[in-house]
Amino acid sequence: MSKMLLVEPLRAGATIGIVGGGQLGRMLALAGASLGLRIDIYCPDKDSPAFDVAANHMVADYDDEAALSAFAARVDRVTYEFENIPAKAMAALCAGVLVLPPAQSLQVSQDRLIEKTFLRDLGVPVGFFAAVDNVSDLRKILAEVKQPCVMKTRRFGYDGKGQVRIERAEDAEKAYTAIGEAPAIVESFIDFNCEISVVVARSSDGRMVSYEPAENRHENHILRKSFVPANVAPKVCAKACRYALDIAESLDHVGVLAVEYFVQGAGEGAELLVNEIAPRVHNSGHWTQDGALTCQFEQHIRAVAGWPLGSCKRIADVCMTNLLGEEACDPASLAVETGACLHIYGKKVVKPFRKMGHINRMKIS
Amino acid sequence: MSKMLLVEPLRAGATIGIVGGGQLGRMLALAGASLGLRIDIYCPDKDSPAFDVAANHMVADYDDEAALSAFAARVDRVTYEFENIPAKAMAALCAGVLVLPPAQSLQVSQDRLIEKTFLRDLGVPVGFFAAVDNVSDLRKILAEVKQPCVMKTRRFGYDGKGQVRIERAEDAEKAYTAIGEAPAIVESFIDFNCEISVVVARSSDGRMVSYEPAENRHENHILRKSFVPANVAPKVCAKACRYALDIAESLDHVGVLAVEYFVQGAGEGAELLVNEIAPRVHNSGHWTQDGALTCQFEQHIRAVAGWPLGSCKRIADVCMTNLLGEEACDPASLAVETGACLHIYGKKVVKPFRKMGHINRMKIS
Repeated sequence: MSKMLLVEPLRAGATIGIVGGGQLGRMLALAGASLGLRIDIYCPDKDSPAFDVAANHMVADYDDEAALSAFAARVDRVTYEFENIPAKAMAALCAGVLVLPPAQSLQVSQDRLIEKTFLRDLGVPVGFFAAVDNVSDLRKILAEVKQPCVMKTRRFGYDGKGQVRIERAEDAEKAYTAIGEAPAIVESFIDFNCEISVVVARSSDGRMVSYEPAENRHENHILRKSFVPANVAPKVCAKACRYALDIAESLDHVGVLAVEYFVQGAGEGAELLVNEIAPRVHNSGHWTQDGALTCQFEQHIRAVAGWPLGSCKRIADVCMTNLLGEEACDPASLAVETGACLHIYGKKVVKPFRKMGHINRMKIS
Repeated sequence: MSKMLLVEPLRAGATIGIVGGGQLGRMLALAGASLGLRIDIYCPDKDSPAFDVAANHMVADYDDEAALSAFAARVDRVTYEFENIPAKAMAALCAGVLVLPPAQSLQVSQDRLIEKTFLRDLGVPVGFFAAVDNVSDLRKILAEVKQPCVMKTRRFGYDGKGQVRIERAEDAEKAYTAIGEAPAIVESFIDFNCEISVVVARSSDGRMVSYEPAENRHENHILRKSFVPANVAPKVCAKACRYALDIAESLDHVGVLAVEYFVQGAGEGAELLVNEIAPRVHNSGHWTQDGALTCQFEQHIRAVAGWPLGSCKRIADVCMTNLLGEEACDPASLAVETGACLHIYGKKVVKPFRKMGHINRMKIS
């Protein structure tokens, strides 16, 4: 049974607070501003790129409960750009204002073990996983699972961080030290043909929409390209969307949610395994900014504002490419390419492999 | 001979100062931020809607030369959202920083007499006009031109302000008083089938692009709707684009420029008369935000930044409708319409007929 949340639709000029001031917060802020909403950003980093496009901001740590309460008090609603918000911070915000997506989406997606268990219980296919709480757990698992395999911390990992590849059972101790002896899971390596992801949105009255799946290419554990349409059979695409919608519904999610899949095999018989879910706008959905009638950022803001969702209709073939490190420094040289829609994040510090912007290359007939 | 300006292309993170903090400044700021530029707004109104989406702003009058100089000193380039910037303000800015579009575009478009004379000299068709410097001029003109006709102040008029309709020659004195005894021009009323406008852009290296003409519908002297494609023969559309490009080139313009036309007659033989030009982004170009590969705001920012222009390719039929007064207060009720792309300006005060936002209704096959 899907839960309906009674959410007062925000009026023009109301303020949405966004926790997190990175590029996702910035693009959420831009989308919110286009819809006439005021944006307030909460972030510990005083150089947050989202501050430059927001009406107001607060620089404070995620464990500063007084600051979080003050933030909750001065906005009409709160959302977030990332799932690793401490539970105490979430509680401090929720005490003062409606926070969407709801806490449950965070709880599930913050912890790989809870997430995988939730997915398995929902009947959504996931790869082999097993919990590791100590070296002895790990040794037992390694006696049964094929190596190489991968161990990931249960919490606070992204872009390949908090992960270690285990080549041989004898490396158990070394591997457990490498991830800081944190609670973890072991996963088997998955052979796959390609990776796809689906962005869906759910409104507070329980309606849901899904974008088409994008196909993703990673380099050095960082997303490099996402393109639509994916090279995957329509039936498999439909299944990927269906699972993502089931997940959003089962979480009583409100807002955008992304699901990453491994695709095994080819054609109509290809199998899907969920890699992970993110209860937020997602890098693999950036193509929607230029390639869909409503982009994922506006979609998320609409849901959080208690408004109806927009159309996910795709209007072109698009290939999104992330701009890393120095690649975004000279936009004039990028702007020369016809049909290349530029998005640059205004980050003050350039570092190798840091996501600095992206290009949506449009193929319009 | 077209002039090329040597303009250093702005790097990511450079700051564009925008003079004027209304909805056009706000939408320019949003477009600039998406391209990774910092935006600084100069406006005397402390409640300017553009402030909410800019990294920085300055509240000061347009005749405050010290403030203007300080503003010029802290940004990398300056542009503006409206053409009625006093010449002294422009001079104060230009002394400190490159201002684009160049002063000449302002000088011509600020003064109806200079504008009409410029257009006539360029061979672009305009309706009858005659200069009025005193009541005696006006009496002479009224003896020759058919009544009713219209008298408009040469400077600082928009949305039907600074205009008076003259029914009979005997009303000369009353009419001259009504417009504040300001320097003016008399124009004859023009019978027309429809109004169209063309938005073009010119980059600092002299390249130019043109959007398709939009057809405009006014109510109470305020633009109500603009739609593409216009109901005008392709040959006439091409001519409208050609004139607008000629105007931009002849002014050595850099940035976006809009030209409004009256269309007389029908079919391929229809005649065009220029109504007015605006050396800036224009309300009739708002359809490009959702209906073109590059929108007019990004196009203007690209030109001002010294970057190459983007593609003007239209990707859908679009009807833009302005939201006036109370019409934008409850966005949730507007968001329910499929294919309706909402843009709301975040203005704090609602007044009857005030432009509060617009909707782009997309027809995608």
